[in-house]
Amino acid sequence: MEYRIEKDTMGEVQVPADKYWGAQTERSRNNFKIGPSASMPKEIIEGFAYLKKAAAYANHNLGVLSVEKRDAIAAVCDEILAGKLDDQFPLVIWQTGSGTQSNMNVNEVIANRAQVLAGFKIGEGEAVVKANDDANKSQSSNDTFPTGMHIAAYKAVVEVTLPGVEKLRDTLQAKSSEFNNVVKIGRTHLMDATPLTLGQELSGYVAQLNYGIKAVKNTLSHLSEVALGGTAVGTGLNTPDGYDIKVAEYIAKFTGQPFVTAPNKFEALASHDAIVEAHGALKQLAVSLNKIANDVRMLASGPRSGIGEIIIPENEPGSSIMPGKVNPTQCEALTMVCAQVIGNDVAIAVGGMQGHYELNVFKPVMAANFLQSARLLGDACVSFEEHCASGIEPNYKRIKELVDNSLMLVTALNTKIGYYKSAEIAQTAHKNGTTLKDEAVRLGYVSAEDFDAWVKPEEMVGSLK
Amino acid sequence: MEYRIEKDTMGEVQVPADKYWGAQTERSRNNFKIGPSASMPKEIIEGFAYLKKAAAYANHNLGVLSVEKRDAIAAVCDEILAGKLDDQFPLVIWQTGSGTQSNMNVNEVIANRAQVLAGFKIGEGEAVVKANDDANKSQSSNDTFPTGMHIAAYKAVVEVTLPGVEKLRDTLQAKSSEFNNVVKIGRTHLMDATPLTLGQELSGYVAQLNYGIKAVKNTLSHLSEVALGGTAVGTGLNTPDGYDIKVAEYIAKFTGQPFVTAPNKFEALASHDAIVEAHGALKQLAVSLNKIANDVRMLASGPRSGIGEIIIPENEPGSSIMPGKVNPTQCEALTMVCAQVIGNDVAIAVGGMQGHYELNVFKPVMAANFLQSARLLGDACVSFEEHCASGIEPNYKRIKELVDNSLMLVTALNTKIGYYKSAEIAQTAHKNGTTLKDEAVRLGYVSAEDFDAWVKPEEMVGSLK
Amino acid sequence: MEYRIEKDTMGEVQVPADKYWGAQTERSRNNFKIGPSASMPKEIIEGFAYLKKAAAYANHNLGVLSVEKRDAIAAVCDEILAGKLDDQFPLVIWQTGSGTQSNMNVNEVIANRAQVLAGFKIGEGEAVVKANDDANKSQSSNDTFPTGMHIAAYKAVVEVTLPGVEKLRDTLQAKSSEFNNVVKIGRTHLMDATPLTLGQELSGYVAQLNYGIKAVKNTLSHLSEVALGGTAVGTGLNTPDGYDIKVAEYIAKFTGQPFVTAPNKFEALASHDAIVEAHGALKQLAVSLNKIANDVRMLASGPRSGIGEIIIPENEPGSSIMPGKVNPTQCEALTMVCAQVIGNDVAIAVGGMQGHYELNVFKPVMAANFLQSARLLGDACVSFEEHCASGIEPNYKRIKELVDNSLMLVTALNTKIGYYKSAEIAQTAHKNGTTLKDEAVRLGYVSAEDFDAWVKPEEMVGSLK
Amino acid sequence: MEYRIEKDTMGEVQVPADKYWGAQTERSRNNFKIGPSASMPKEIIEGFAYLKKAAAYANHNLGVLSVEKRDAIAAVCDEILAGKLDDQFPLVIWQTGSGTQSNMNVNEVIANRAQVLAGFKIGEGEAVVKANDDANKSQSSNDTFPTGMHIAAYKAVVEVTLPGVEKLRDTLQAKSSEFNNVVKIGRTHLMDATPLTLGQELSGYVAQLNYGIKAVKNTLSHLSEVALGGTAVGTGLNTPDGYDIKVAEYIAKFTGQPFVTAPNKFEALASHDAIVEAHGALKQLAVSLNKIANDVRMLASGPRSGIGEIIIPENEPGSSIMPGKVNPTQCEALTMVCAQVIGNDVAIAVGGMQGHYELNVFKPVMAANFLQSARLLGDACVSFEEHCASGIEPNYKRIKELVDNSLMLVTALNTKIGYYKSAEIAQTAHKNGTTLKDEAVRLGYVSAEDFDAWVKPEEMVGSLK
Repeated sequence: MEYRIEKDTMGEVQVPADKYWGAQTERSRNNFKIGPSASMPKEIIEGFAYLKKAAAYANHNLGVLSVEKRDAIAAVCDEILAGKLDDQFPLVIWQTGSGTQSNMNVNEVIANRAQVLAGFKIGEGEAVVKANDDANKSQSSNDTFPTGMHIAAYKAVVEVTLPGVEKLRDTLQAKSSEFNNVVKIGRTHLMDATPLTLGQELSGYVAQLNYGIKAVKNTLSHLSEVALGGTAVGTGLNTPDGYDIKVAEYIAKFTGQPFVTAPNKFEALASHDAIVEAHGALKQLAVSLNKIANDVRMLASGPRSGIGEIIIPENEPGSSIMPGKVNPTQCEALTMVCAQVIGNDVAIAVGGMQGHYELNVFKPVMAANFLQSARLLGDACVSFEEHCASGIEPNYKRIKELVDNSLMLVTALNTKIGYYKSAEIAQTAHKNGTTLKDEAVRLGYVSAEDFDAWVKPEEMVGSLK
Repeated sequence: MEYRIEKDTMGEVQVPADKYWGAQTERSRNNFKIGPSASMPKEIIEGFAYLKKAAAYANHNLGVLSVEKRDAIAAVCDEILAGKLDDQFPLVIWQTGSGTQSNMNVNEVIANRAQVLAGFKIGEGEAVVKANDDANKSQSSNDTFPTGMHIAAYKAVVEVTLPGVEKLRDTLQAKSSEFNNVVKIGRTHLMDATPLTLGQELSGYVAQLNYGIKAVKNTLSHLSEVALGGTAVGTGLNTPDGYDIKVAEYIAKFTGQPFVTAPNKFEALASHDAIVEAHGALKQLAVSLNKIANDVRMLASGPRSGIGEIIIPENEPGSSIMPGKVNPTQCEALTMVCAQVIGNDVAIAVGGMQGHYELNVFKPVMAANFLQSARLLGDACVSFEEHCASGIEPNYKRIKELVDNSLMLVTALNTKIGYYKSAEIAQTAHKNGTTLKDEAVRLGYVSAEDFDAWVKPEEMVGSLK
Repeated sequence: MEYRIEKDTMGEVQVPADKYWGAQTERSRNNFKIGPSASMPKEIIEGFAYLKKAAAYANHNLGVLSVEKRDAIAAVCDEILAGKLDDQFPLVIWQTGSGTQSNMNVNEVIANRAQVLAGFKIGEGEAVVKANDDANKSQSSNDTFPTGMHIAAYKAVVEVTLPGVEKLRDTLQAKSSEFNNVVKIGRTHLMDATPLTLGQELSGYVAQLNYGIKAVKNTLSHLSEVALGGTAVGTGLNTPDGYDIKVAEYIAKFTGQPFVTAPNKFEALASHDAIVEAHGALKQLAVSLNKIANDVRMLASGPRSGIGEIIIPENEPGSSIMPGKVNPTQCEALTMVCAQVIGNDVAIAVGGMQGHYELNVFKPVMAANFLQSARLLGDACVSFEEHCASGIEPNYKRIKELVDNSLMLVTALNTKIGYYKSAEIAQTAHKNGTTLKDEAVRLGYVSAEDFDAWVKPEEMVGSLK
Repeated sequence: MEYRIEKDTMGEVQVPADKYWGAQTERSRNNFKIGPSASMPKEIIEGFAYLKKAAAYANHNLGVLSVEKRDAIAAVCDEILAGKLDDQFPLVIWQTGSGTQSNMNVNEVIANRAQVLAGFKIGEGEAVVKANDDANKSQSSNDTFPTGMHIAAYKAVVEVTLPGVEKLRDTLQAKSSEFNNVVKIGRTHLMDATPLTLGQELSGYVAQLNYGIKAVKNTLSHLSEVALGGTAVGTGLNTPDGYDIKVAEYIAKFTGQPFVTAPNKFEALASHDAIVEAHGALKQLAVSLNKIANDVRMLASGPRSGIGEIIIPENEPGSSIMPGKVNPTQCEALTMVCAQVIGNDVAIAVGGMQGHYELNVFKPVMAANFLQSARLLGDACVSFEEHCASGIEPNYKRIKELVDNSLMLVTALNTKIGYYKSAEIAQTAHKNGTTLKDEAVRLGYVSAEDFDAWVKPEEMVGSLK
C-alpha cells in the first residue's frame, strides 16, 4: 500500500495515499482498534456534512469566511451527502467520547478533497481550505458532535421511526374497524373472561401506538435544538456575533427540518438529556410493540394446539426439521427489536448520567444506540405491517366456538342475581363440564328464557364506535 | 388471638377478630408471604379510597345505588383518607398482578366498617354495604387498580416530585444569577479547557432540570386518564350509561386534579404505558441529577487535594475514623436515588412489556416502583437543596488561581495566529512549566502587549445574560 | 417529647430522651428526610452487630481493648441480634454513600446502651464504651459497612434464597419424575411441534434452577470475603497486627458462615463487585423463574379458551366482577418479583460502576437492592412451590386430545419419505382440516399400516431417564 | 441482475444467480428488511460451519450419512471457516427468533456449493447434498442455532475477552509493583483521606480484574454445553443413538475447545441461561473497568486545574478548537464500551426471560449482544493497555506536594490522643489554612517531636507486599 505523510500539532503520520483523511483520523484508526472498523454511524457523518456546510454559510454570511472557501467546503459536504465519499470515514464508535476524531475526520476530508476539487494534489500548494481554521471555523468538536447527533437523531425519528410506526398503526386501525363486530372471548390473567370484539382488542393496540407516537413527538422539540455556536465549553468563544442563530437557520434550511439554536449551550454540551428523553419515548414504543406482537403470536398460535383465534400470513417454512410448520416470524423479529431497544435505553442512561463538568464524553455510544433503536423500530414496524399485520384475519369458526363455550358470560348475571349465585353457577358448570345455562336452570336461579334474554355475548361488549 | 369467620365464593376463612378485612384479604395474606408485610404502597390505598367514593357517587347519580349506600361507602373512604384505617391494609405488592386482592381488601374494609358505623357488629344483620355488589359496583379490579395507580402516580408527581425538583431548580437559578460573573476554568474530558463563569456552569444544571420538568409535564396528560368504567376487559360491562365520564368527574372533584376518563379502556387495562411514559421522564431527571450532583461533589472536592472551586455546607462528621473529615453526603444520597430510579425504570419496562391479551398483570410492581421513584426524587431534591445547593459558595481564591494558570486561554489566539502556532505555545508552556505569555513572546508569535490585549479570561466567556 | 443533649465533633444536638442513639444519628435523621424512615435494611444492622462484636473480641485478643469493654460491647450486640433494640435504628438508605451514619448509629447505640446496662444514665459518669474510640476501634465506616453488607448478603442468600429455590427445584423434580411418561404436544414459536413428555418439559425447569443455584454458589466465595481490617482506605491504618484475619475468624464463628478476610482491601472498599457478581446470579434466577412461571400460567390457561394442559391449585377468587374466575396468581407474584430483580440488577450495576478512588459511595443502595432481591426470590419460590407447583396435575384428557390431533407428528416420516413429501402431507391436512394419516395415504406416500407403525407419539420422545 | 429459480416447500423463489443461497434465505432477505443487511454476526456463521461439519462426521460415524456426503459437507464448511464464502450470508439478526433462516442459509449454501464443487451447476443433476435431508440431518434449527451461539460465545470469550482483560491485568500488576512505594494521598467520598501507595491503589484494580476473570471462567462450563442432538424440542427425534455425545466430541475436536453435550436438552433449547450467566460476568467486568478507567482519567486530570497525580500517554490532539489540549481518550473509549455492555446485559435478560414452552425465540438478539460485548471488552482492554495503562507514570512532584499538605494525616493521632482532639486539630488547621503540626502544637495536644514521630505518611500505608 502506498502512503503519504500528513501532520498535525503532534507531528507526522503516514496515511494511505488514496484516502482523503489526514493525520488525526489516522491516529484514531491506529489507536482505537475496537470492534469492526467504520462503525461510527453513517447518519452522524451526514449530520456533520449538513452542519459543516451550514457553518461555512454562516461564517461567510457573518464576514469571517470567504465565498470561495464557503463554496469549496459546501461542495465536499454535498459529495458526502450524495454518498460519494462513504469510504473516507473509517473511524469507530469507541474513540474519544467527544467524537473529536470524527469531527477531524470530516474536517480533514473536506480540506483534502477541496484541494483535489480545486485541481491540486493533496498537500500541494497553499491549502484551499484548512481543516482546523476553515472547515472547523467557529466550531469545536464539543458543539459539532452533539449537533450532528441531533440532526441524525431527529431525521431518523421523523423519517424512519414515525412513518414506520404510523404505517403499522394505520393498518391496525383499519383491521380494528373491519373486525369491529367480531365478538370473541376476552382473556385476563391468560384466563377466560368476558367477551369483547376483535376490533376492540385491536383498538387497544392502536391506542398504544398513538400514545407512543405522541410521546415521541413530545421529545422532538428538545431534539431540534442544536449546540452549534457553543464551541469549546458553551460560551461560544471564537464565534462571530449572531452565529449560533444563523447557523441553526442554515441547518434548518439544508435539512428541511425545524432546527433551532439551543437556548442554553452549557446544557447542550455537558448533557445529552435530549437523547435520553427521546430514547425514553422509543423505549415506550418498544414496550408497547412487545405486548402487541406477543398478543398476535399467542392469538395466532396453533394450528391445532394453541389459541388459534386469528390467522396470520404464512411467509416462510418454519422449521428445518418439522415439515409444514409455519411460525409467527415477524412477531419474533419485532420482539427481538424491542429487547434491543430496552437494552439500548440503559446504555444511553448510563452514558447520559456520566457527564463531567462542561462535557459529556459518551457522545458516540449514545448516538449509536439511539440511531440503532430509531431505525430498527421503524424498519421492524414496516416489516411487521407488510408481512403480518396487513394479513390478520379472524378464524371465525374458532372464535365462535370459544365464545359459545365460555363460563365468564355468567358475569352478565351479576346485576340480576348477584355475584355469589353467579359464581356458584360458573363453578358448578366448570366442575361438571356443563354449560352455564344448564346449571343456572338446574340450580333454580334463572329460567331458561331469562338466561337467553340476559346472557347475550353480543350485548356484553359495550358500545361499538 | 381471636378470630371470626368470613366467607367468600370459595368458602370460609378465619380472620383476626379486630380487623375489618374479610375472606379474600385473609387468603391473600396467607398465600403471599413474600417480603415484608403491608408493602402495598399507602398511596395506592388512598387512590382506591378516592375512586370507591367517586364510584359510589356516580352509581347513585346514575340510579343504581341508594343514597344510604353511597354515604356509607363515602364515610369509610373518608376515614381511609384521614389515615384512620391504616392498619387495615396488610397485603403485599407480590400478590395477584391485577391487584384484585387489594381491591377486595378495600371492598371488604368498606363493607365491614360501614356495618360497624351503622351500629352493627361485623356480620350482624343485613349487610349495609356488600363488598362485591355495592362497594365494587360498576367496577372490576381490572379498572380500579389502574385507576388507583394513576391517581397515586399523578398526585405523587405533582405533589412531591415536581415541587421538589422545582425548589432545587429555583435555588440553582438563584445561585447561577448570583455567580454570573465569577470567571473560572472550564473542563472538558476532565481536562482544563477555556473559561466560563460559575453562573454559566450552574445555568446548564438549571436548563437540565427545566427540560426534565417539561418532560414530566408532557406525560401528565396520559397519567390523568383513568380506566374506571372499563370493568373486566374494557367493554364497560355492568356499568350504567355515562358512568365512565361521570366517575372521572367525581375523581377529579375529590382529588382536585384534572382526571378524565381514558378514551380507550382496552389500552388502559392491557397496558400501562402511561406509567412507562411518565417514569421515562423520571429516569431522565435521574440522569440529569446524577450529573449535577456528581459535578458538585467534584467541584467541592478537597479540601487540599481536590478541585476545591466551590464550598458546600458541612453537615455531619464525615468519618468514624478520620477526624475532621467532611463529605458531600447530600450528593451521595441524591446519586444513590438516581441509581435506584434508573433501575426502577427497567423493572417498569419489564413489567409493562408483558401484558397479555386484555390485561397487564404487573400492576402492583409497576405502581410500587413508580411511586418509590416519584417520592425519592422529590424528597432527595428537597434534601439536596436545603442541605447543599442553597449553601454553595465559590472559593474565589482557588478559582482565580486556576484560571490565571490555565493553558487553554491560548484558544483566544486561534483567530489571531491560527490553531497550529497556538498549539505550539501551549505545548511548550506545558512542557516547560511556564506561562502562555512567556512562551508566546519567546516564540515570537505574539507581543506581550498583544497577549495582554487578546487573552482576557473575562472576555472569553461570551455574553452574560 | 423530651430531649437530651448529645454532642460530636461538630457540636451539640438534641436527641429524643428515650432513644440510645447520639448526635450523628440525629444529624442524619434531620438531614436525610428521603422516603420512609428507618429504611436501612434490618439485615445490615444485624451484620453490624456481628462485626462489632467480632471486632471487640479481636481487639481484646490483640491487646488493644479491655475485657470489660469487649463484654460491654458484645452484650449490646447480642441484644441487637435478639431484636431487642429494633427501634434504635431510624436511618434511611439515602444517607451518606459510605453508610457512615449507620455505622455511627450502631456505635452510638452500643455506647449509650452499654452505659445503661452498666447501671448509669446516658451521659452520666465516665463512658464505659466510647462510640468512636471503643465501639469503632480498629474500624472505619469504609470497612465496616461493606463487611456488614457481605454478612447480610451472604446470609440472605444461603438462608433465604437458596433454600427457597431448592425447595421449588425439588418439587419440580418430583413432578418431572411423576409425569415422566405423560406424552404431550411440544410447542416451539408457540406453534405445535413434535411431542415430548410433561416430565421432560418440567425437567428443563429443573435444569434451569440447578444452573441458577450453581451460579449463585459460584459467587459465594467472593461474598465471603470481608473488608474489615482495611479501615479508612484499605491500608489498615490504626489496626493491630493480625487483626484482619482474627476479626474475620470471629465473624465466621459468630455467624456460623465461612467468612474470611478479603485478600485485597483496596478492592473491597473501592468496589463492590462481589455484590454485582452475586446479584448477577440472582438476576439469572429471575430470568429462569420468569420463563418457568410464564410457561405454567400458559399451560394452565383456560379453563375453556386456553391451553389447559395442566391444572394448578385454585387459591382465591380471581375476580371482583367475574364470578367463579380463578387466576394463576402465584405465577403473577413470581413474575413481578422477577421484574423487580431484573430492575435491581441495573440499580446495582449503576451504583457499582461509580466508585471513585479509594471508596465506592453507593453502598446502601447496592445493599438494599441486593437484600430485597435475595429475600423476594426466596420467599416467592416458597410461595410458588407451596401454593402452585406442588399442586400441578396433568389434564390428561386435554393432553391426549391435542397430541392425537397434531400435525407435527409428521416429522417422524422425515427419515422414511424425506422432508418435502412430509411437508406436503402436513400442509394438505392443515388446509383440509383432516388427519395426517388420511392425507398420507391419500397422497400415496405411506400405507396405513406403515403410518401406524412409524408415527407413534410415545416413540417420538426419545429416551426417558 | 440475473436470477435463477429455487424452491422450497412453499414454492418457487427467484434468487441472484451468482449466490449459493436458496429459496428460504431469499425469502428471509425479502421479508426482514430491518437494519443493515448481513448483520447476523460472522462468528455465528463460523459456529454453524463447525457444527455442520461435526454433524456430518457424527452422522457418518453412526451410519446414517455416506462418506461422500460427509466429505462434501465438510469441504464447504472448511471454505466457510477460511472466509471464502463471506458474501453468502446476507441475513439479519432481526429474523425468526430461532435463527431457522440462518440455519437454512448455511444448509442451502452447503448444498449448492457442494454441487458446484462436484462439477455441476446449481440445480443440475441429482443433488450431491440436500439442504434439509443431508446438511441438516439429525439437526433442527432449534438445536443448531444454540450450538452455534455457544461455539461463537465460548470462542469469543476465551480468544478475545479473556486475553484482552488479562493483558490489561498484567500491565496493571506490573505498574502496581513498580509503584509499590509511592506514597500518595488517599481519597474517599472524593475528599482527602489517609495515605496509601500508588501501587496499592493499582492493586485494587488488579484484584477487580482478577475477580472478573474468575467470574467469567466460572461461566464457561455452562457455555461449553451444546444443544446439538436435541433437534426440534429436546427429545432428539430423528437422531441416531449416541449422536449427541459424538457430535459434541467432533465439535470439541474441530474447534479445539472442550465442548460437551448438554445434559438436559430441554433447558438448552427453551432457555439461554448460559448466555445470561456468562454475560452477567461480562457485565461485572464492565462495572469494574468503568471504575478503573474513570479513576485513571480523574487521577490524570489537569494538567493544571485537575488532580494530576499520574501522567498518561498523549496520543492525539484532543481538541479541534483548543490548541495543545490532550485528553484521556482511551478511558473514554473504554467507559463507552462499559455503558454498551451494561445495556446489552438488559437486552439479553429481556430476551432470555421470554422463552415459551420448548423454545426461546430471542436467540439471534441474545447472540448478537453477547458477541458484541465479548469483542468490545477484549478489544477495548487491549487498546487501553497499549495506549494508556502501559504508559502510566506517577507525577512525583504533585503527589508529594499533596501528601505533605494533607489534613487527614491527623488520623495517625487517633490512637495517641483520641478521635475528638484529633478532629479539633484538623478542623482548626482547615479553618486557618495552616498545617496539622502547627495546630497540634498550638493547641497543646502534641509536641512537635511527637508529631514528627507519630505522623509519618510512609508508616500509615500498612504492610507493602
